[in-house]
Amino acid sequence: MSEKISRRRLVQAGAVAAAGAAIPAAAEAKNRRKKKPVQDVVVVGAGLAGLMAARTLVAKGKRVKVLEARGRVGGRTYSPKYDDVTLDVGGQWLGPTQDKVAALAGKLGVKTFKSYWEGQAVYQRSGSRTLFNVTSPIPPDPDGGETLGFVLKLENLAADISRSAPWQDPNADFYDGQTFETFKLANTTGDGARFLTDLATNAVWACEPRDISLLHLLFYISSAGNETTPGSFIRLTSTTGGAQESRFVGGSQQLSIRMAKKLGARVVLRAPVRQIRQEDGLCHVTSDKGTWRAKQVIVAVPPAVSAFIDYDPILPSDRAQLIQRFPQGNAIKVQAIYDKPFWREEGLSGYVNSDEGPVKLMYDNSPPDGSAGVLLGFIEGQEARLAGRMSASARKSAVLDNFKKTIGNAAGKPKAYVEKNWAQEEWTRGCYGGFLPPGALTGFGPALRKPHGRIHWAGTEHAEIWNGYMDGALRSGEDAAKAALKKL
Amino acid sequence: MSEKISRRRLVQAGAVAAAGAAIPAAAEAKNRRKKKPVQDVVVVGAGLAGLMAARTLVAKGKRVKVLEARGRVGGRTYSPKYDDVTLDVGGQWLGPTQDKVAALAGKLGVKTFKSYWEGQAVYQRSGSRTLFNVTSPIPPDPDGGETLGFVLKLENLAADISRSAPWQDPNADFYDGQTFETFKLANTTGDGARFLTDLATNAVWACEPRDISLLHLLFYISSAGNETTPGSFIRLTSTTGGAQESRFVGGSQQLSIRMAKKLGARVVLRAPVRQIRQEDGLCHVTSDKGTWRAKQVIVAVPPAVSAFIDYDPILPSDRAQLIQRFPQGNAIKVQAIYDKPFWREEGLSGYVNSDEGPVKLMYDNSPPDGSAGVLLGFIEGQEARLAGRMSASARKSAVLDNFKKTIGNAAGKPKAYVEKNWAQEEWTRGCYGGFLPPGALTGFGPALRKPHGRIHWAGTEHAEIWNGYMDGALRSGEDAAKAALKKL
Repeated sequence: MSEKISRRRLVQAGAVAAAGAAIPAAAEAKNRRKKKPVQDVVVVGAGLAGLMAARTLVAKGKRVKVLEARGRVGGRTYSPKYDDVTLDVGGQWLGPTQDKVAALAGKLGVKTFKSYWEGQAVYQRSGSRTLFNVTSPIPPDPDGGETLGFVLKLENLAADISRSAPWQDPNADFYDGQTFETFKLANTTGDGARFLTDLATNAVWACEPRDISLLHLLFYISSAGNETTPGSFIRLTSTTGGAQESRFVGGSQQLSIRMAKKLGARVVLRAPVRQIRQEDGLCHVTSDKGTWRAKQVIVAVPPAVSAFIDYDPILPSDRAQLIQRFPQGNAIKVQAIYDKPFWREEGLSGYVNSDEGPVKLMYDNSPPDGSAGVLLGFIEGQEARLAGRMSASARKSAVLDNFKKTIGNAAGKPKAYVEKNWAQEEWTRGCYGGFLPPGALTGFGPALRKPHGRIHWAGTEHAEIWNGYMDGALRSGEDAAKAALKKL
Repeated sequence: MSEKISRRRLVQAGAVAAAGAAIPAAAEAKNRRKKKPVQDVVVVGAGLAGLMAARTLVAKGKRVKVLEARGRVGGRTYSPKYDDVTLDVGGQWLGPTQDKVAALAGKLGVKTFKSYWEGQAVYQRSGSRTLFNVTSPIPPDPDGGETLGFVLKLENLAADISRSAPWQDPNADFYDGQTFETFKLANTTGDGARFLTDLATNAVWACEPRDISLLHLLFYISSAGNETTPGSFIRLTSTTGGAQESRFVGGSQQLSIRMAKKLGARVVLRAPVRQIRQEDGLCHVTSDKGTWRAKQVIVAVPPAVSAFIDYDPILPSDRAQLIQRFPQGNAIKVQAIYDKPFWREEGLSGYVNSDEGPVKLMYDNSPPDGSAGVLLGFIEGQEARLAGRMSASARKSAVLDNFKKTIGNAAGKPKAYVEKNWAQEEWTRGCYGGFLPPGALTGFGPALRKPHGRIHWAGTEHAEIWNGYMDGALRSGEDAAKAALKKL
């Protein structure tokens, strides 16, 4: 390895410089002229994980820079205004046991409010529309009992899975040897139970049951609780008492905007990081806005996006291979704005479970005061892949057809229509988070949180608690900051 | 999308340039000063695929540059000398129906010779060492019959799988919903049959049965034949009559070295490509050796490595998501050199199947004239991951213990010991090739060979015939060249 690295440095410093186009060398020369001070830590990415890491370090008196590729902070949380209505086009909910995100919101003065969860929900299935009370634990499917039994089986299996090292489970090989699809087919018989399992997989992981390892799914369920409360699948899919219980006034991006405001000039926007070079006891982090030197680095971007960076020395093979196996889910979030939440007057909750794509899952996403009506539709997993290949107008038309069929004709004529396909975002490349196919955890699990020299990994995919959620992002940032602090 | 692109260009051309660190812009400015002529095609990567693409284009009178990251050509074929013995430390074999690679070798004057395949093979299993005739179709396992039955089942299933669009198979969802591990457990009962299945999976895909989609595995088998001969699992694993039948005199890298020699100054070494920007009807390909403009581009690197490039406009989401799900296998190739192939005198073939890691598969890899003895050991799949975490000396010691136990004590004292861990190679990051986990083909198959504007994809992972092999690499290069030609 050392021979390879030195050869590579030779190329950069020598042959390439001679050819006159040594990009990193040129950026570095500029850096030396400017004599930027050495940072204690450079954080790559100003999403919740990166900003929380920076905040933690600054609180300890450390010198920090946060380099963000986009022209905004917040990563997978983004809350622009449309027609004077703030819409969360990314992550938006919080719920019980997500203590870190609740505490941060409290500290930053970001208020929360309960998701609208009253009236009748719609179960659109096999061409027929049935209403049910939205507080019911499950839609009125003939296979409802079997479905609940299957969910309890998952809860029981997940209860035994370690959050810190699921690959060490005595059954790890068996669980990681199969897809969740295989497990579903082996443990359900009814079409309804299978459909509802698919729908829940779409909703929680933004993928299909065939895409995800049973072991990773069980780990993810296990992680959906706090230090004293075990994880729960029902908590993942529930509104009241679950991960969809509450929303942020002003949008979830407020958390990042306010953290960034306190960090001030430490946050550099439009600075995609291209290279991280570790040499002579320092990291040289080269972005489109120049090079910064730092004692430690925290990379706080999705694993798949972390592959875009040129590492010198290169990533250890375990980490490199892990991120080859860490795809992002597929979700297109569509929202339609109306003068008012008219469906509420008709006794509808706005919540829909449907077997007709592209939108199979809907929520009332109106602002807290009900001053406008907002319907939220999720296009997830395979539906998102197929819908992503449609023209924008064909997709909008298909979405509004779903809305009309389930909520009523008035839903077909919104004042505004907004969609966000996160797989098309260069610096995220898929939502809600990264998941693991079979074989990845048992093959490469130990590489998940192992630093590469002075480089630490953050981002919700690295969290032991509330993996995949805003809460997990904050925890991963705090954990990485603590690991970096120990080395300073 | 167009708004996003234009904003991004603005950043590169405006804000970033103002900040004085616009790396691509600086390289471009230099390029403009030099006024390099516009190429018909720039090829990224001088492995077999890229060189074959360039060769095909040059034969049609086109102006071509090949940009190679390494200081050598050949990609996953590399044939250095140790102790005056040429060793293939990467891909090395060819066999029947691999017509393209055989024809190219003929044209370039690279001779081939038959792999040594005489005498007794060793079956090391459950602590006991059994000899069997190397020409036997299967080791002397009590589950041999069951194993052959399982192999025939695979042959039959694969016979129906399309090479061009396996995701359209009527059973695609079923096959792509499960790992090969799941299929193995459902269709075998004996420990021996399962062990031999694992061993064959290690040998062909350099992964574990849990890592790979049954659909991708069946496609891969289907692709292991030529236009008139259906694919075959037995052909994949066989020496005589199979993919390990012959080797190249002077090493497989001779193919690339000779192609590159004919291409002359068109091949630029030590020029890793960092960005491909499509603008105003041209591609601007920026490498560490400068920027070239071209009408079309062929990216001929492993899918996982193609993720390192900054694309502007960004990759379509289907392609981006596909390459998030396209991991490289894990193989460490170890070779030991002796004065002579002493095992031949003892009636041994050098071929070993073993259930004791790290080396579970061995071959006689001596030079054609037998002037030295070379034993080749493969460390594959999970064994490669575990062995990669060992110290070099511990790994060597474990390997030589395998060699001694199966071939004899003399195998423990080689003149030279050489290993190559392809997962540690920056510009390959795993061997033998990329494979697909469940869900990838059904989710993203159509993106596999679809160009991104003026960018075409090559590399053996894109081949319809002999996918994963040198033959497939050449075919993929030729196919990409033809697609580019049509647009010139």
